[in-house]
Amino acid sequence: MSETETKKPARDPWDLPDVSGLVVGVLGGTGDQGRGLAYRLARAGQKVIIGSRAAERAREAAAGLGLGVEGTDNAECARRSDIVIVAVPWEGHAATLAALREELRGKLVVDCVNPLGFDKQGAYALKPEEGSAAQQAAALLPESRVTAAFHHLSAVLLQDETVDEIDTDVMVLGEKRADTDLVQALAARIPGMRGVYAGRLRGAHQVESLVANLIAVNRRYKAHAGLRVTDVQETRDR
Amino acid sequence: MSETETKKPARDPWDLPDVSGLVVGVLGGTGDQGRGLAYRLARAGQKVIIGSRAAERAREAAAGLGLGVEGTDNAECARRSDIVIVAVPWEGHAATLAALREELRGKLVVDCVNPLGFDKQGAYALKPEEGSAAQQAAALLPESRVTAAFHHLSAVLLQDETVDEIDTDVMVLGEKRADTDLVQALAARIPGMRGVYAGRLRGAHQVESLVANLIAVNRRYKAHAGLRVTDVQETRDR
Repeated sequence: MSETETKKPARDPWDLPDVSGLVVGVLGGTGDQGRGLAYRLARAGQKVIIGSRAAERAREAAAGLGLGVEGTDNAECARRSDIVIVAVPWEGHAATLAALREELRGKLVVDCVNPLGFDKQGAYALKPEEGSAAQQAAALLPESRVTAAFHHLSAVLLQDETVDEIDTDVMVLGEKRADTDLVQALAARIPGMRGVYAGRLRGAHQVESLVANLIAVNRRYKAHAGLRVTDVQETRDR
Repeated sequence: MSETETKKPARDPWDLPDVSGLVVGVLGGTGDQGRGLAYRLARAGQKVIIGSRAAERAREAAAGLGLGVEGTDNAECARRSDIVIVAVPWEGHAATLAALREELRGKLVVDCVNPLGFDKQGAYALKPEEGSAAQQAAALLPESRVTAAFHHLSAVLLQDETVDEIDTDVMVLGEKRADTDLVQALAARIPGMRGVYAGRLRGAHQVESLVANLIAVNRRYKAHAGLRVTDVQETRDR
């Protein structure tokens, strides 16, 4: 390899792949967050398959969304999808993923689960033994490409058909740039949304837990809070 | 108390107190973050005292900033200030605060320390035994009013005299509304900055740790990343 070839300039972080042809599965797609994400991605033109423990419930949720969304059981959803978003309740996270290890082999998995507890004072972070929900997913799915993203989205706004743009950045975490680039590109399919690389999976706990703080914000300000990362410019717009 | 008095409408979260007459101390004010905060607050017209283990170093830093900033040792800084910002390195956090328990009695303490470790892959969160740096401060200072804020500010931008506005929100955590209101008001003194209530101290760990993710953002995008909380409108502007 020549000198000029080895000293490439840093890649443009906004030079992201085309994901428009990929099938997106949403495990736990009958819950508020999962259904909201399925709706937004389908509305953006993505082929979406909702998964649920009960295929019938998934089919009903899919029919309610329209936009070509299909519903089926979690295993078939995982098998037929290129990118699989994990939006199951934290309580069922480990068991659901452990049962799908074969179906998720080689797939790009996007964990968006927030391990939280609730008491009189509001929400608080739970600390999974593996460090975070995303690291638990990575431990249970050694043959999958596990990333973490879509934690800070308001399920209310996602599902509100009168809302055209979701004004928020999506922090994307993962070990391989090829994988996080794909997830960033997927987030950018949704109008108003931007995927921002925010570190490796070992940094997922604080991203997941921050939802507890956003819940406190929502309560104080009667808002549906999201986050923007400032001073990060999109070079593709220049 | 009459019915009308007990059923007050929810207080406007942007109805914040006037803090312009309060003296602000900055422990660790000779470090980048502390000096940056001292500079911004002094530039906004606040009386600021920098504290350091060595009074002479604090005096030099203060002289460098001008704007009426004074420098002295940590104990006198704490004694003379109404609001005391803790910006010491995490390694010296516990020892510094334990030694100032008397001086900080009754004071409003604002912890902005981020317990982080660093290795080849970048920054990662450290988990203090007490849960967070802020909770450690609260445990060591039972007679003080401990809050947490100012974690996500770029020391580079804070210290850059050509930067007029700091485009970021400041997440403010604490147990008492009167205290967090004061800290929010202090943040709002700095042009471009807004203080947003973001929960109790038990939610401080993820706010402190998120700096590890912002460091990853800065590296990828060559940025000085901060955060904005979306969908939170300032009613006072309406």
